[in-house]
Amino acid sequence: MAKKPEQMAFDFIDIPSRSEKPRSKGLVMVLDKGMGIEQGLSLMPAAAYIDIIKLGWGTARLFSEAFIREKITLFKRHGIIVSNGGTFLEIAYQQNKIDLFFEYCHHIGIEAVEVSNGIIDISRQIKAAIIRRAASQGFFVMSEVGKKDPARDHQLSLQERVTEAKSDLDAGAQFIIIEAREGGRSLGVYDDTGALKQEMARFLAEKIGIDKIMFEAPDKSQQTQLMMLFGRDVNLGNIRPDDVIPLETLRRGIRGDTFGKLQDRHR
Amino acid sequence: MAKKPEQMAFDFIDIPSRSEKPRSKGLVMVLDKGMGIEQGLSLMPAAAYIDIIKLGWGTARLFSEAFIREKITLFKRHGIIVSNGGTFLEIAYQQNKIDLFFEYCHHIGIEAVEVSNGIIDISRQIKAAIIRRAASQGFFVMSEVGKKDPARDHQLSLQERVTEAKSDLDAGAQFIIIEAREGGRSLGVYDDTGALKQEMARFLAEKIGIDKIMFEAPDKSQQTQLMMLFGRDVNLGNIRPDDVIPLETLRRGIRGDTFGKLQDRHR
Amino acid sequence: MAKKPEQMAFDFIDIPSRSEKPRSKGLVMVLDKGMGIEQGLSLMPAAAYIDIIKLGWGTARLFSEAFIREKITLFKRHGIIVSNGGTFLEIAYQQNKIDLFFEYCHHIGIEAVEVSNGIIDISRQIKAAIIRRAASQGFFVMSEVGKKDPARDHQLSLQERVTEAKSDLDAGAQFIIIEAREGGRSLGVYDDTGALKQEMARFLAEKIGIDKIMFEAPDKSQQTQLMMLFGRDVNLGNIRPDDVIPLETLRRGIRGDTFGKLQDRHR
Repeated sequence: MAKKPEQMAFDFIDIPSRSEKPRSKGLVMVLDKGMGIEQGLSLMPAAAYIDIIKLGWGTARLFSEAFIREKITLFKRHGIIVSNGGTFLEIAYQQNKIDLFFEYCHHIGIEAVEVSNGIIDISRQIKAAIIRRAASQGFFVMSEVGKKDPARDHQLSLQERVTEAKSDLDAGAQFIIIEAREGGRSLGVYDDTGALKQEMARFLAEKIGIDKIMFEAPDKSQQTQLMMLFGRDVNLGNIRPDDVIPLETLRRGIRGDTFGKLQDRHR
Repeated sequence: MAKKPEQMAFDFIDIPSRSEKPRSKGLVMVLDKGMGIEQGLSLMPAAAYIDIIKLGWGTARLFSEAFIREKITLFKRHGIIVSNGGTFLEIAYQQNKIDLFFEYCHHIGIEAVEVSNGIIDISRQIKAAIIRRAASQGFFVMSEVGKKDPARDHQLSLQERVTEAKSDLDAGAQFIIIEAREGGRSLGVYDDTGALKQEMARFLAEKIGIDKIMFEAPDKSQQTQLMMLFGRDVNLGNIRPDDVIPLETLRRGIRGDTFGKLQDRHR
Repeated sequence: MAKKPEQMAFDFIDIPSRSEKPRSKGLVMVLDKGMGIEQGLSLMPAAAYIDIIKLGWGTARLFSEAFIREKITLFKRHGIIVSNGGTFLEIAYQQNKIDLFFEYCHHIGIEAVEVSNGIIDISRQIKAAIIRRAASQGFFVMSEVGKKDPARDHQLSLQERVTEAKSDLDAGAQFIIIEAREGGRSLGVYDDTGALKQEMARFLAEKIGIDKIMFEAPDKSQQTQLMMLFGRDVNLGNIRPDDVIPLETLRRGIRGDTFGKLQDRHR
């Protein structure tokens, strides 16, 4: 958490090391559905394992500015970058308020911007333009590929996903988020039971580059499957606050599911 | 939360307005399974979107009076009415202690009373008498229709539900709660998978009046289906504390599930 | 929670009494997946109903010593014994650090030790030796029987489970934990849907002694089924923090699921 080295508990037990923040791989993005300050405080002992906290979809709109600012300040003090929810930016786009949106993000301390087209049709060109604008204003930009409606998501071909991802990266996105929502069912790389579509995940990783992808993976089984496929340092998003520590134990192989099974395949 | 107008975050983004507390429609009742003070504090930034908090079933019996009083005081300070759990009142009835129960509710600050017959056979006449007594003592009265055991609940005909609901309203109940428990499966308007039985929900709404009904709806898909059917201002109960903000984003259309899909049909 | 008798809320409602801590039956062991201090504080009004909190698997390794110590101190102040996770001790065994592990547990305030062989092959004899060593050092010892991998768990015969349990008890274990993990599916006494295998549970209870068994039972339906079979005072583990109060209401028959259905069969 702090800069100075801390005495860790049980530090005589050897575990694989991981890179420190700011990380370039093995990132964790937590989904905040509107947690209060006490919940936020309670999460901070796990801050070393959280790179980004996303204020999910339009939740931030329902709180006072003072509250959101207090929460962002808390997270920043622990070295965590705060992001908007993609849906929220899409709504701003629909209301012709992208500039105001970016301005307000700066104003309130949001340093990362997620650009998506999950609920509104935003063409590849316009999406790239929004990414470019965000990047030029100094935001850490993540772009999401996929639709929130399973029927519409299934119409997106693999090739279209790759083309859009490359266009977004060219425009300045740091990571491509593969949509799975809070539920992790019937979207992107997950089937109707939430199981990983390995072939699809592998294809995306090959074409886009595994270090440029962040898979939304709300369930333990999804996190485990992705680590078994891509190594412990796969980037994972939409992690529930209470699952930050369980996820990190999976990465370090100190939970039954991954014990002795992970190589550092991904580097 | 406070009376004075607060600067809301991202307030340049237009969202549909909703009525303020005390509301006559679009109510939210949260199920408290025994949360502690810190959890309660953490929920209070969402207090504007909570009308009632129910101390679920007999949970209050397990705490000290001082603790329950502290929790009720916290909620009241934020404009939230606290209710007993229906099961708890049924047990008081079985022990011939309804008068003591009401007296103690007054004593400890509980302002709303839920009257149910979900686990004990209480005739329509006696249920009405209990409701009348509670109303005459100044309680905000909610009545629940349905059984907690799916087998017994299925034996209740639609017409019986309506007859009981009307009897309860005549006796002074403000709302009729449609039972779904914490789980939302195989009870009332939900089938074994938790999906909404639309015909049944519509029938009850027509006969009882949608503004007089509060549907217990613990799952996001249930909340969404009910809003699609009855509009954003349908009354919803048994909401988990962590789902208060997500629910309000559904009502305002700032989450993918309801974005652009809700009319203010229900007024 | 404190020693002096407290005025309980609604204490005119009669409920079955339960033994006070330290209990010899009806124990509750909570699974801590890495909760923060505020979450811990919020749980403490329920401390009278928590006998043991287990720092799940290797989670403790990820925190500072100061943090883990603060959490243990909080729990101990409320009369709760803290235990390691079994997986963590298995990893210590694999690294030839069992002595260091016990020493560190003493150092940091962990008073209960769980000894398992769920992920590593540890022979019955060696397991017994570890139990003996822990008991001789003054730890409250619990032993777990079962594998974390369903395929391997299914290969363990009923007789092997009983033989191992008896060997562990002879070596000094106070309780035999029946493995179910956090999920409660496809392991030990639960089938793939999480339903209780009654015959198996009964067999284990007869051979090992129901008072010596602690069933991991994360789901409400599992807790209910076990109480219906063995009475309200069955020992239950891997309870989620938010389910401590709901569980105790099941034990006392003040929730619909067990109301009027439990005898004190188990004594």
